[in-house]
Amino acid sequence: IVNSFEDLEARSSEAKGKIVLFNVPFTSYGKTVQYRSGGAIAASKAGAIASIIRSVGPFSMNTPHTGGMRYEDGIKKIPHAAITVEDAAMISRMVDRGQTIKIKLYMEGKFEPDALSRNVMGEIKGSEFPDEVIVLGGHIDSWDVGQGAMDDGGGCVAAWQAVKMMKELGLRPKRTIRVVMWTNEENGMRGGNAYRDAHIDELDDHILAMESDGGVFKPSGFGFTGSDEAMNILQDIGTLLYSIESGVITKGGGGADIGPIMREGVPGMGLRVDGSKYFWYHHTNADTWDKLDKDEFNQCVATMAVMAYVVADMDERLPRDKTK
Amino acid sequence: IVNSFEDLEARSSEAKGKIVLFNVPFTSYGKTVQYRSGGAIAASKAGAIASIIRSVGPFSMNTPHTGGMRYEDGIKKIPHAAITVEDAAMISRMVDRGQTIKIKLYMEGKFEPDALSRNVMGEIKGSEFPDEVIVLGGHIDSWDVGQGAMDDGGGCVAAWQAVKMMKELGLRPKRTIRVVMWTNEENGMRGGNAYRDAHIDELDDHILAMESDGGVFKPSGFGFTGSDEAMNILQDIGTLLYSIESGVITKGGGGADIGPIMREGVPGMGLRVDGSKYFWYHHTNADTWDKLDKDEFNQCVATMAVMAYVVADMDERLPRDKTK
Repeated sequence: IVNSFEDLEARSSEAKGKIVLFNVPFTSYGKTVQYRSGGAIAASKAGAIASIIRSVGPFSMNTPHTGGMRYEDGIKKIPHAAITVEDAAMISRMVDRGQTIKIKLYMEGKFEPDALSRNVMGEIKGSEFPDEVIVLGGHIDSWDVGQGAMDDGGGCVAAWQAVKMMKELGLRPKRTIRVVMWTNEENGMRGGNAYRDAHIDELDDHILAMESDGGVFKPSGFGFTGSDEAMNILQDIGTLLYSIESGVITKGGGGADIGPIMREGVPGMGLRVDGSKYFWYHHTNADTWDKLDKDEFNQCVATMAVMAYVVADMDERLPRDKTK
Repeated sequence: IVNSFEDLEARSSEAKGKIVLFNVPFTSYGKTVQYRSGGAIAASKAGAIASIIRSVGPFSMNTPHTGGMRYEDGIKKIPHAAITVEDAAMISRMVDRGQTIKIKLYMEGKFEPDALSRNVMGEIKGSEFPDEVIVLGGHIDSWDVGQGAMDDGGGCVAAWQAVKMMKELGLRPKRTIRVVMWTNEENGMRGGNAYRDAHIDELDDHILAMESDGGVFKPSGFGFTGSDEAMNILQDIGTLLYSIESGVITKGGGGADIGPIMREGVPGMGLRVDGSKYFWYHHTNADTWDKLDKDEFNQCVATMAVMAYVVADMDERLPRDKTK
């Protein structure tokens, strides 16, 4: 049992032929997830025959957490699994008491061969500048343990509803609004990359990309990555959302699926929500639709709808950063 | 799928040869637990071959809930199980869509023959009235799915610590303070009943019985069942606990294990705590010690220690209701 990569390094002589347990408490997702993604590599380097991690999450009701992990060329591939927070704590207490723990790993996870999958798209063609596009969405995939309601089915449906609402209201903005459910974010960002490749010649006319990928909880606004001029305009638009306490535009933000086109220069923004419970459900069998609050969900829809519509219907196009 | 006993009765002709699912949302424990305790009887009467319930709880992270259930003489005993809130909701949605659900029940639960078990007791003998007893504790058992940290290991340890603290401080009150971990509450209240039987001739000198059986969350005081005179005295003592916001004495209260001696006339009180999350963990595999907050736990210890000590050390004995 080790509490960090450094701990493993210091005690690597003990690891040979054993199963290494990374019992690392959750601090932030970014920090703690490293043990999920890179744990097998570090344990294998130390000579371990398998590695297990304490599930990556701030709260558990005996809830195992899954997600992607990596191997490294030249380093032996060993089994790598997550156990619940409770079980990791219990095993640690037992070892602290001097007990010897035997763990039998039975795992069914495996990679299937690639199969064809597609991004799902729908749009309202712009009335004046149909080639100028505001794109918004989420990723229509999930880990098999749950339904992916928060990550990221809810985000997809919210974006979809935002555009559906415009359709039903008979609204047709000057620019095209396109909703995209990007496929396969969880396993290599294939949908986001494919979208970039398919639309690479049109990206100069992608005015804004917007994604909801932090769960559909109470929204507060957006994090935006783009020019200062654009930021000022978006903050003005944000005031329209103050009545639902959701128009704060902060600097920096985007989303996994729009990352590929943002790196090509498209301004991007991510819906900001109350994230205090996101990692309770994230990548677990508790990520089910009953966790969605209808009112909060509707506020997410409204937030994305207002922002997308106004940007699409402005006389001027949203300015890009000229230095890039 | 039925939503209530009434619903089952109205549609009992459909139940023959089927598995009945009671998909009853949690309202209060008292109301919803009836489907756990009595569901098999009602379903069997309608001719069902098995019954399953939506787990009894207000919040779930795919967390099944267990607990006791009953059969009735003359009614065929059918299998009875709980599925998670999420699964019950999903099955209901599938049936609403017109799908036919096949469920294969595999259950390992069974009754083992009775085995000897004992209440665990410790006490500080009173300096002036050693035969007069203040008894406090909880039940040292749990359902096998978790550790029973909230129900009721935490209550046991808190009571134990309260008395241990007096011992360490060299405090010896006028009356005897006895901590009891009653065995087997979950399965027939055997420890509480045995305590009553073993001490039946001493119950007139049982001054007060106190139990913690609602989880060791932030305490607010006690619920008390006894004479009005005693109530007034206890409310005065409660003021000593105001500094930790935990001295409110309300009418009515007790505990499962002290129930048998309370019915013999012993005044009883139950520790009151913030119960908003108790039924998240209750009877589930999430009832583990990591759910205890150390500060809140210590406040429970202090609350019970102060109340027990002052009642034990008063010049007068706590008055009983003379009308009973």
